[in-house]
Amino acid sequence: MSKPLHKLSATEVVALTRSGKLSVEDAKALIARVQERDPVVKGWAHFDPEIVLASARALDKIPTEKRGPLHGVAVGVKDVIYTKDFPTQQFSPIYKDDHPKLDASCILTLRASGALIFGKTHTTEFATCQKGPPTSNPHDPKRSPGGSSSGSGAVVGDFQVPLALGTQTGGSTIRPASYNGIFALKPTWNAISREGLKMYSITCDTLGLYSRDVKDLDLLTEVFRLKDDVPPPAAPLDLTKAKFGFVKSHVWPKAQPSVISAWETAKELLVAAGAEVEEVDLPTDFDNLGIWHRNILHMEGQAAFLGDYLSTPEQLDPWVTKHVVNDTATTRKEQLESYDNIARLRPVIDSIAAKYTALITPSVTDEAPVLEEPLRFTGDASFNLMWTVLHLPVVNVPGFVGPNGMPIGLSLVSPRYTEQALLHTVRQVEKVFAKGGWKLE
Amino acid sequence: MSKPLHKLSATEVVALTRSGKLSVEDAKALIARVQERDPVVKGWAHFDPEIVLASARALDKIPTEKRGPLHGVAVGVKDVIYTKDFPTQQFSPIYKDDHPKLDASCILTLRASGALIFGKTHTTEFATCQKGPPTSNPHDPKRSPGGSSSGSGAVVGDFQVPLALGTQTGGSTIRPASYNGIFALKPTWNAISREGLKMYSITCDTLGLYSRDVKDLDLLTEVFRLKDDVPPPAAPLDLTKAKFGFVKSHVWPKAQPSVISAWETAKELLVAAGAEVEEVDLPTDFDNLGIWHRNILHMEGQAAFLGDYLSTPEQLDPWVTKHVVNDTATTRKEQLESYDNIARLRPVIDSIAAKYTALITPSVTDEAPVLEEPLRFTGDASFNLMWTVLHLPVVNVPGFVGPNGMPIGLSLVSPRYTEQALLHTVRQVEKVFAKGGWKLE
Repeated sequence: MSKPLHKLSATEVVALTRSGKLSVEDAKALIARVQERDPVVKGWAHFDPEIVLASARALDKIPTEKRGPLHGVAVGVKDVIYTKDFPTQQFSPIYKDDHPKLDASCILTLRASGALIFGKTHTTEFATCQKGPPTSNPHDPKRSPGGSSSGSGAVVGDFQVPLALGTQTGGSTIRPASYNGIFALKPTWNAISREGLKMYSITCDTLGLYSRDVKDLDLLTEVFRLKDDVPPPAAPLDLTKAKFGFVKSHVWPKAQPSVISAWETAKELLVAAGAEVEEVDLPTDFDNLGIWHRNILHMEGQAAFLGDYLSTPEQLDPWVTKHVVNDTATTRKEQLESYDNIARLRPVIDSIAAKYTALITPSVTDEAPVLEEPLRFTGDASFNLMWTVLHLPVVNVPGFVGPNGMPIGLSLVSPRYTEQALLHTVRQVEKVFAKGGWKLE
Repeated sequence: MSKPLHKLSATEVVALTRSGKLSVEDAKALIARVQERDPVVKGWAHFDPEIVLASARALDKIPTEKRGPLHGVAVGVKDVIYTKDFPTQQFSPIYKDDHPKLDASCILTLRASGALIFGKTHTTEFATCQKGPPTSNPHDPKRSPGGSSSGSGAVVGDFQVPLALGTQTGGSTIRPASYNGIFALKPTWNAISREGLKMYSITCDTLGLYSRDVKDLDLLTEVFRLKDDVPPPAAPLDLTKAKFGFVKSHVWPKAQPSVISAWETAKELLVAAGAEVEEVDLPTDFDNLGIWHRNILHMEGQAAFLGDYLSTPEQLDPWVTKHVVNDTATTRKEQLESYDNIARLRPVIDSIAAKYTALITPSVTDEAPVLEEPLRFTGDASFNLMWTVLHLPVVNVPGFVGPNGMPIGLSLVSPRYTEQALLHTVRQVEKVFAKGGWKLE
């Protein structure tokens, strides 16, 4: 191996393990990496090297012909996702040290595919709330790794594991990807089962995937069987035949100079690569998506957290409580109109997106914010909300750098259930964006 | 007490416990009832009197001023819903004796309200599948109690507990209610959180509530905070000012003479009570709801059961497996068109329903079917599917009798998030339907 283990992608680990050059137990190099870096990054809510090593040894005993497509790959798991071998604490005092002996559906799939479940990564309380966990951005510990998938984004960005699971209800997968300079796929809503995750908004909660290499996202889409009706061609995308729709959306006024600069650079680089780019003005109805998204989260959060509120109200963050007590007096009528209007727009945005190789939109408003105690605010999700509630797949593609040297990514978006085509596009676009100045190392 | 404990409604138990005439530990009379009847009805997948009694004693120790609105009421829980104190076995060999230490969101709410979690009731495998569990209909053990909430329907109908939780993805709450001669409320989708339940179809899965008394459903709506925007008037519904829309729907050809007779009797009784009735022809688009519902279940089941399929394929019922392997080659396009078309019809059916005091539609095609081994088919859910996927609240109101002396109920339906108004209507309609010949005793 020319590279140290912690620098390997999942795809590389799989290949080396398959050829016998690597054992799963070699993951102790990753354990060492965690032990070295966790005092700074603080990405893990629970990490138990003994259990990881025991799992690794068990995986090493599986005969070659019975090994799965992720055999031996270490995966970090956001701490709102139930795992049999580790506690699931939700960054909530209510669930401190709580350990339901349950594997979420996605964990069953990962285990059956040979993954090495590596530990639980920090989240905001129940993947809600503005208040961040202790995690820092690996590229600047003074800054936020984003949230709510704070730990998952940070430990992948910090080369502690090649893959991690996050979730997204607003911008909780894509925003940390941008802040940590890595890839993330937020698939179509429910394309991966969200069973076995603490629920916030049933309409929005989506399992998300982190990696440092787009090929690893391909691997994960195979594992989770995300299949387009029409698979993309085997040949790489020819950028001179590609057309990208740049969507500013109603949130554009929130874009800071760092993001505007990335946006302009992306356009120039794509044009230089021979692609066509055009700005897409969405119909004015789409301007309401922010408020509709908010109505849905508020009212679905009311149902989701009622049980915790009635059981242990004093241990809930006020951000959670306000849903249950309906502090804004949101009505069922508003909730239903939000559902119905958004549902009406889903096929509309599918049609718009289908006219382009991909839509491109900001992942964030700015570089990762500087952490301020005690809130440790995880940043602004404004650019992510509409795509979450519209259920479209989104990939954060890193490539750009802000004035503070922090990474900035852009979101590529495609119609519902076209993850394969979207990743096919990303494989070429990432090479173009890589000229934007960001290099993860 | 004039009535034996097992004959009491939840509302009566609450009142007697509040006035000190009953202790929670008196629930041992229900335990005796279970022990007497379970050899015939076989409604329980797990029943542990010691744990129930320990919980009862703990509830008795709660000071009066801290008691919840369901203090001391025994509740049966369908065995797809996680409970900390009992195993959750899903009627699946994979989960035999499995015991995640987790309370579903609805269980947290029930416990915080003082409910006595009484045990786990039989279900079909993962609340999917045609194959029934060992449970029999309490009114004729040769017949099915319905499914998939087989045990919950049967133990409430058999006076073993006053309340039980079910779930509905097709007709799994309403159909057993009709077969067992009891009330059931399938609320608006996600009005009660479905977190902590094995998932089948995220778009359709709905927590359902069983009782023998409509007042008990009112109590449960309070507990779960199902609040209409406009609460119903305090005064009882004046049936001479009521107008009911009788909806045959595209499924009507499946209605057997027993149901047609109940239907005609219901109309006559309502008219005799001074109400207006009219037949409602739904727009032809609604004829597609059966196939759209099927597409959604099929494709969402694919995501839901992937983890189990990859882990233990040989232990899955073929009914479950066919989803994962997509035996019908259903496309994402079909799935998305199903989503979008149904979403378009939801506000349409809300508007139609809002023109009536309630819509009335069959709950079942016939009386409970005779059980045949080895399938133990739980009956035909055709009349329930469209209301489930449209997300409207439905109450089964018992009252009628088939040629074999078995109960037959009808469904009352109202717009989304109008559970309080619907139950306000049911309180009068049940008195009218009670002349239909069915008496639970």
